Amino acid sequence: MPSERAERGMDILRQINPQSAQALFSELESIAPDLSRFVAEFAYGDIYARPGLTLREREMITVAALTAQGNAAPQLKSHIVGALNSGCTEQEIIEIMLQMAVYAGFPAAINGIMAAKEVFTARKANETDPA
Amino acid sequence: MPSERAERGMDILRQINPQSAQALFSELESIAPDLSRFVAEFAYGDIYARPGLTLREREMITVAALTAQGNAAPQLKSHIVGALNSGCTEQEIIEIMLQMAVYAGFPAAINGIMAAKEVFTARKANETDPA
Amino acid sequence: MPSERAERGMDILRQINPQSAQALFSELESIAPDLSRFVAEFAYGDIYARPGLTLREREMITVAALTAQGNAAPQLKSHIVGALNSGCTEQEIIEIMLQMAVYAGFPAAINGIMAAKEVFTARKANETDPA
Amino acid sequence: MPSERAERGMDILRQINPQSAQALFSELESIAPDLSRFVAEFAYGDIYARPGLTLREREMITVAALTAQGNAAPQLKSHIVGALNSGCTEQEIIEIMLQMAVYAGFPAAINGIMAAKEVFTARKANETDPA
Amino acid sequence: MPSERAERGMDILRQINPQSAQALFSELESIAPDLSRFVAEFAYGDIYARPGLTLREREMITVAALTAQGNAAPQLKSHIVGALNSGCTEQEIIEIMLQMAVYAGFPAAINGIMAAKEVFTARKANETDPA
Amino acid sequence: MPSERAERGMDILRQINPQSAQALFSELESIAPDLSRFVAEFAYGDIYARPGLTLREREMITVAALTAQGNAAPQLKSHIVGALNSGCTEQEIIEIMLQMAVYAGFPAAINGIMAAKEVFTARKANETDPA
Repeated sequence: MPSERAERGMDILRQINPQSAQALFSELESIAPDLSRFVAEFAYGDIYARPGLTLREREMITVAALTAQGNAAPQLKSHIVGALNSGCTEQEIIEIMLQMAVYAGFPAAINGIMAAKEVFTARKANETDPA
Repeated sequence: MPSERAERGMDILRQINPQSAQALFSELESIAPDLSRFVAEFAYGDIYARPGLTLREREMITVAALTAQGNAAPQLKSHIVGALNSGCTEQEIIEIMLQMAVYAGFPAAINGIMAAKEVFTARKANETDPA
Repeated sequence: MPSERAERGMDILRQINPQSAQALFSELESIAPDLSRFVAEFAYGDIYARPGLTLREREMITVAALTAQGNAAPQLKSHIVGALNSGCTEQEIIEIMLQMAVYAGFPAAINGIMAAKEVFTARKANETDPA
Repeated sequence: MPSERAERGMDILRQINPQSAQALFSELESIAPDLSRFVAEFAYGDIYARPGLTLREREMITVAALTAQGNAAPQLKSHIVGALNSGCTEQEIIEIMLQMAVYAGFPAAINGIMAAKEVFTARKANETDPA
Repeated sequence: MPSERAERGMDILRQINPQSAQALFSELESIAPDLSRFVAEFAYGDIYARPGLTLREREMITVAALTAQGNAAPQLKSHIVGALNSGCTEQEIIEIMLQMAVYAGFPAAINGIMAAKEVFTARKANETDPA
Repeated sequence: MPSERAERGMDILRQINPQSAQALFSELESIAPDLSRFVAEFAYGDIYARPGLTLREREMITVAALTAQGNAAPQLKSHIVGALNSGCTEQEIIEIMLQMAVYAGFPAAINGIMAAKEVFTARKANETDPA
């Protein structure tokens, strides 16, 4: 039975990026289910659930940090989706990437923009999906 | 004569952290004055001056990125001041640091908090300074 | 009242590096006490408390990672102490540092060795302290 | 004729990951054969050949460092194999990854787990290969 | 109308890697055209256009930095081409990669060599292209 | 008795930065003398001794990489000295730092410039030393 912390974290994940969380948890199921639990409990249940920053602000700083670090493409794309789902516009995400050129260099900014482009394009394809 | 871009950048620097910009430019004067110019023109005149994010949001993502990278203590402290001057509360800065534990690990978060503590303490000392 | 997870984490911290944990928690008390709680609950209560690796092995991999990352000197020194308290010899710690030259370069290895030297020297000074 | 250091290094490589070393050396043959030599001589002949840590411990700290750095996926997978061949269990490798969440953040841990899953799956496929 | 700085930057880009710049600018066109402008104006028009280092030297230090950072493969490959176009030999590029083993570890050097091999092979295929 | 590789490495170290090498080896003597040996044998005897790049070029790429990594201040300062002793001018070193703003961000460039300023100032103080 999931802990109260996990429930709280899952509620937040359902708001910001349910598909990505679902995909991650399925992947981890057979090898490290405790890592899914720590993601839900600690990352979302303990940290994102805190008052003091809005979810939109939390996703913005995560997108900034992952862009600057430049070595976690799957998580960056997942949080670009999360940022959009939390109220960021596409242009705001692009602004974050551009600013990271100042703090982490142009390659980090360019690779961030390319990740954003991929996410934005996939979302548009889904929206116009006739099915 | 400073370029229009430099003027625009300096205006922003005067809003967010005039003392720190002044100190940096003095330090660079004798060795690499063009770097001061690039900071004013590109970092602030081209990037921070853009619409699309508020200055408060720009400082928040900078604090997040520098905390996650963990190797630029002087700039992190300077942007903690900039975040406070742009409308962030101390608690919001602490929230950013805590969230970086999720994306860059606990040492990065702890060192970020220690930098914030140093900045907050220095500001309080100045405020209560009888002079 | 501390959670069961925090209690479990504190028990481990008392084994591996009580002084350093105490110092960290005192520093964080006035600014971010929740970070102390997360260190105790998540880092030690959830992770270090797991079976599957010995505490000595856990400290060895932490020393390796912090040496390779090269940007968290206070935490590196604290975990060198933790490694010694968990059963590592000084020579084993030096071997870890040397091996990091292969994966993170010579500067990381040299700076790791210098941190170890500082820790080893301070411990010897304490041991021979006549008081 | 290979140096004594290279021979010593190759002996260790044959124990821990002969296929991966073979593949690397074939790749480097036409472009930078001296790099193969330095890998054999310095990385394995000088460092891994040292007493003071077991091969299993050496592979564990390498897996930890590469997971924390998060930017060398081919080498991480190769050393996950090396760790298994040196006496680590799959569960011990997972524990290393989980612990890296504390020192390098959750994305590093998740990407480490995904690399491990890929390695474990490929090994199982080979074991049950009817040929 | 492009600024004088952009013109100056584009002139340099045309010398060192016109195809890669073209490809990047096409990619950015629909999502962040200002980033193309900043690349042309700041990176090339302000920095590469400076006297004091030759273009060959500028490409060499860029290849070194990107190899050491190890998290920007597209940019590394693009600057390996730029280094060759600025007067570096293939062997000089290999020497840079080998030296990075000392400062960033063997995985960084090996991944740099693999990027170089890919670039060198593609260029040879083009040269011998019967079309 | 030092190996031929160590002799060759020490010859190069005597050309580029004898004081810094001496200081490092003294520091390592009591704790990890083998690391001094690896520095002399591998870093300098195997790598820097190779033909294909001049010592000045080797020092330039090292200064670039260490500036971009931003987490090895003692080694950066030591190689700024090495670059000057190998034929770089102060202005060339400053150019390297400025260019790193493009690839690693402004904080890395600024901290690199500050390290250079410290080295340049100390050298001028020595030159004018009346003793």
